This record gives sequence, C-alpha cells and structure tokens, in this order.
Amino acid sequence: MGDMVSTPTVIVDVDILDRNIAAMADAVQANGLALRPHIKTHKIVEIARKQIAAGATGLTVATIGEAEVFADPSGAAVDDLFIAYPLWLTRSSAARLVAASEQARISFGVDSVEGVRNAGARLGDAARRFEVLIEVDSGHHRSGVHPDGVTEIAAAADDAGLHVAGVFTFPGHSYGVGQADSAAHDEAKSLRKASRLLAESGVPVKVRSGGSTPTALLSDGGALTELRPGVYVFGDAQQWELGRTEPADIALTVLATVISRSDGPERRIVLDAGSKVLGADRPGYASGFGRLIDYPDARVTGLSEHHATVEFPGDAKLPVRGSRVRVVPNHVCTVLNLVDEVAVAKGGLIVDVWRVAARGRNN
Amino acid sequence: MGDMVSTPTVIVDVDILDRNIAAMADAVQANGLALRPHIKTHKIVEIARKQIAAGATGLTVATIGEAEVFADPSGAAVDDLFIAYPLWLTRSSAARLVAASEQARISFGVDSVEGVRNAGARLGDAARRFEVLIEVDSGHHRSGVHPDGVTEIAAAADDAGLHVAGVFTFPGHSYGVGQADSAAHDEAKSLRKASRLLAESGVPVKVRSGGSTPTALLSDGGALTELRPGVYVFGDAQQWELGRTEPADIALTVLATVISRSDGPERRIVLDAGSKVLGADRPGYASGFGRLIDYPDARVTGLSEHHATVEFPGDAKLPVRGSRVRVVPNHVCTVLNLVDEVAVAKGGLIVDVWRVAARGRNN
Repeated sequence: MGDMVSTPTVIVDVDILDRNIAAMADAVQANGLALRPHIKTHKIVEIARKQIAAGATGLTVATIGEAEVFADPSGAAVDDLFIAYPLWLTRSSAARLVAASEQARISFGVDSVEGVRNAGARLGDAARRFEVLIEVDSGHHRSGVHPDGVTEIAAAADDAGLHVAGVFTFPGHSYGVGQADSAAHDEAKSLRKASRLLAESGVPVKVRSGGSTPTALLSDGGALTELRPGVYVFGDAQQWELGRTEPADIALTVLATVISRSDGPERRIVLDAGSKVLGADRPGYASGFGRLIDYPDARVTGLSEHHATVEFPGDAKLPVRGSRVRVVPNHVCTVLNLVDEVAVAKGGLIVDVWRVAARGRNN
Repeated sequence: MGDMVSTPTVIVDVDILDRNIAAMADAVQANGLALRPHIKTHKIVEIARKQIAAGATGLTVATIGEAEVFADPSGAAVDDLFIAYPLWLTRSSAARLVAASEQARISFGVDSVEGVRNAGARLGDAARRFEVLIEVDSGHHRSGVHPDGVTEIAAAADDAGLHVAGVFTFPGHSYGVGQADSAAHDEAKSLRKASRLLAESGVPVKVRSGGSTPTALLSDGGALTELRPGVYVFGDAQQWELGRTEPADIALTVLATVISRSDGPERRIVLDAGSKVLGADRPGYASGFGRLIDYPDARVTGLSEHHATVEFPGDAKLPVRGSRVRVVPNHVCTVLNLVDEVAVAKGGLIVDVWRVAARGRNN
C-alpha cells in the first residue's frame, strides 16, 4: 500500500472483517438469539450480504433512506428490515415507506401515543403492512418510553391499525468504561418488564430486541430474542479503549501521510487525515481523537478538518515526513458516512473497492 | 417550510448569506487587504461565484480535490486558487496538481525542507508553474514552521525550482473565548518576522496571508496583504458563542423534527438530526453540541448519529412532537461535508437547491 493509494483513504481488511462477522454470528447463535446487525455502521451492500450469509435473520437500519438502499432488489435485496427509530412520518416519507414495503418486510419503532397516531394517519390502509416495535428506555435516556408506558402505546397502535410485534431498546449507556455489565442488566430488566405488561394486557410479544456492540456478548439470552450490534464488524478506538476489542481485530483504518513533524520538545507529527475523514467524536472516556494501530502509545491529541496532530510519549522514534501510518478512528460509524468508497485489502494488498451505498441517507 | 421538506435538511438563507459576503468584502477592503475566502466551509460553486463577484481576488482550498472542483471551467472556473496546506505529493497527486494548473493559477503551502524537496522531485520541470507560500506557526501549533525556519525552506525551494511568493499562517488559537485579539497579534508578529527574514536573505515577499473568521476584522492591515476567512459566510454556534456573530446573521441551519419528548422533570426533546448531519465538533468553550436559533436558552446536550437531545431550562414550553425546529450546528464546515445538497431559502420559502460540489474531496 505504498504510493499507489492517495491519502487519506479508508481501508477495510477483509480477512479481519470476515472473522468479526463469523465470531459475532457464532456467539449470538450459541446464546440462542437471532442476530439483526445494524448497517448504520458500514452502509455497504457487500458487507450486508456477508452478514446475511453468516446467518443474520434480517438487518437493522436507522432511516427510511437506508431501508430503501438495502431493500433494493438490484443491490443487497434484504427481505427483512427493522428501522430502529421512532419515525415521525410526513406525507412524502410515508409514501416512501410504503414503496419500500413492496420490496421487503419492514418494521419500525414507535415510542409515543402521538407517534403511533401520526403513523396510522399517514399510512392509512397501508398501516397493516407493518409491524411496529415499541422503543423502551433502558437507561440511555434518549428516545424510548419507560416500560410502564408500553400498554398505552400498544392500545393506540391497535386503534391506528398497526400491529405491535414487540419491544426494543438500545442500551447506549454501555458506552462507558466498566458499564457494559450493568447496561446489559438494565436492558434485560426493561425488556422483561415491558413484555410482561404487554402480555398481561393481551398483546403477545414476539420480539424482544436489544444489543449494542459492548453488551452483545453479555446480553441475557432469556430476556431477549434478538440482538442489533453494529460496530463489531470493524471495531474502532472506542471499542479498543472500552476493552471490547483487541487491535488485532480492528478491520478498518484510515491510511494517512505524515505531512509535518516536530522533533523538538513537543515530539508531534501531523497527518493529512482530519475530522472530515475521521469524524470528531470524542467521548469523555477516550484518550484522544483516535489511535495509531502500529504505535499504541501515540495519541491523536488535536483534530482539525484536514490535520490530525499526534503526540508521542518518551523517546519513541517519530515516523518521518512522507511516511504513512494507519489511524484507528474513535467512532467508525461516522467515518463511513464521510466517504463514498472504501479500499478493500487482503494480506496488505488492495484487492477491491466497495461503494458506501447508503452514505448520507439521513432521512 | 412545512411538510414539503424532509428532515433533517440543511437550509441556507440566501439573503443573510449575501449580507455576510458583502460585509466581509467591505470590511477587508476598507482595511486595505485582499480577500481570498476559504471554500472548505461551503464547498459550493454558487457561493464561490458570489464571493468572486463581491471582489475576492481568488479562493483558498484545502486539498487538490477541492482545487479541481473550483478550477473546473464548467463549474466555478475560478482562475486563482491557493491550496493552504503543506502538500506531500505522490506521483498521482503531482499529476493531478499539474493538470489543475492548466485551468487556474495554483499556489500551495510548504512547511519543511523535506516537503519542498518532495514537491520539486515530483513536479520536475512543472515546478516552475507554481508559487509556494511558506506556512508559519503563529501559535496554533499544528503545521507550519517557526518564523526562524523560513529562510532554510526558501533556499531549498529555490534549489527545487519552486518560486516562493510569501508566507501564510492560520491563527487557529483564535478559537477560544477572548483569544481573538492576542491571536491576531501573534499572526501579525509571526508574518512580519518571517517576511523580514526572507527579505534579508534576498527573497522578496509578495504575499503575507492570514486570517480566520474570529480574527478577520482584527487583523493588522499593515502586517498582512490578504485574509482567508471561511466560516463568515454562514456563521455557526461556535462563532455565536465566541461573540463573533449574532443569531440574526447565521445563514445556515438544520431543519429537524421533534421525534420524542419528555415533559417530566427532565424537560427534554429529541430531534431527528444527529452527528451524521450536524457534525460532532464540541470545543471546550462550547455550551453543547449546537443551539436552536428560535430557543436561545435551549442546549443540545447529547448527540448520537441520528438523535440530538435538547434540554430546556426552567419552565419554557417545549415544542410538541412532530413540530420542526432549526438547529445551529457548532462547526458549519463539517456539516457541508456531510450532505450532497442544501436547500436555499428566501423569505422562509425554498427557492433553489445547491449541490455541495466538493463534498468529500479529502485528497
């Protein structure tokens, strides 16, 4: 990967990718759960096909636009998609949702009586084509209803002609050092309670969906029926720093060139990869804006749009100007939303290019 | 802007945009400086044309890819472009740079002897087509050389067949509350010193280029010859919180729908615009991940890929589910790198759509 590839370039190591896809599929199956990976991480048709081939029962998407891309019969042609988001439909988005449902079985999220009424009104007779899952807040405190609120929403869904198939949650509070176990516990507890209340009110619960990459292997196989992890396909610096992946299992890096270097007391280099390719996510627990896979002690301490400033501790030898290094971005899902294609590597050689088919599909 | 537009959508108010472009052009001209706006902020051909029409002497870009877009005779056809970046050329990027120089006068940045030698070797006889500006570090401590180092670089440039036309700096340490004045002072001091050293070594200095949006109106008209602000065309929450723009002068907002709402003790709403459209930049001085233009007391306190959590103080009335609000992103340059097009509004009505022609042009 010398001078042939321009920098910055996003590179996916396909052998590591395949290994990650197989490992999660095996682990989830061993736990008796269905796997419905979230494609917001990769947005790539070729990777979706690999996930389905490894036994995924369907895929998760975040938007109607992503559903359109992955249902497309000339692309991934996935026949079962869950939009894990409490949609607020307009006339035009409802029409797009109905059109997508001609190509795949589509379910979506709801988290309020108002949202259910809106969906019923916008979809009209077409409402009966869809199953909805009620989003439960298990502790992340973003969208989702308290478990006590599910029966009221289920009743409104029934009035609106929508079929409630179950409940889902995103235990996003797992993204903190040492928090995965308690988040997995909260996830199970919330889904159990919501399911019990629905069952008691006469609504059979077919799906109890949870999961994030940090909690995926900790999720309670009794409380859940399916998992929706996304990041596991690639891994990233967040998962590395949370102890949820090893550097050897990180499948995606950003190749960058050293364009500036200070070997004085500051001991820093500057790379030609900035926030416009790495993303700017920096959670409180992160040690920087990203890591270098071949220099585990270095830290990306500053990030501009086209510059990453990397500091080296002690007396480590700095890479020279013009050399290339591989950056592990903090949050890989935002990286794939920044580039139109990724280079595919096998044994260190570029063997293919994949299009990021759903890049920018925010609505 | 009711139900006709999907959310999230980036909307540019063209009257405010035109006002901002004229105000900066007038102020810079009054200060006796040339204006060379940085297009990394907007990446839009229509806006580049407005800047040139308002008297810009040329444009600034960050990458060869951006230069290709703005030099394109079938697009903006700008005839004078400065790549404000210390390029490290490969065989292929050198060939692209030479091709772009067939369509426009192109200058670029250097900040090291090694970089100059690399450029000379890669460009060969074509080196004489280009002027280079030496990047000086005026206190931002990213790329750029200490002013004392410019003569050595100029000598290497002469050996490499590259013509040194002057010096440039980015006083990026102006991005901090109350730091604009001292950053403008540092900018002037560094450029003055570098220019004096070059002149003493026999290198005439034609260009002394500086400027950032926070310092643009403070820059020393004696020390500088040109300014390269970018963000001023739109403004953003960073400029608002730095006291460098008023909400009434912010030309770009992201229209979003309220998809979830908690009217309990938490008093928060959740919007369908997340980091995949707003960007995730959050400098230390920022009060959140963005602001709502019509609710100046509200703060975006949490950001996921497709969710913004907005908290409201006191007993303010929360917008209802399904209603729409306008978000001011923290750092507007990253927003334009996330979307393929923007809606253009005049008097509250959508009147046009502009393509973000250089989106994703990272190399």
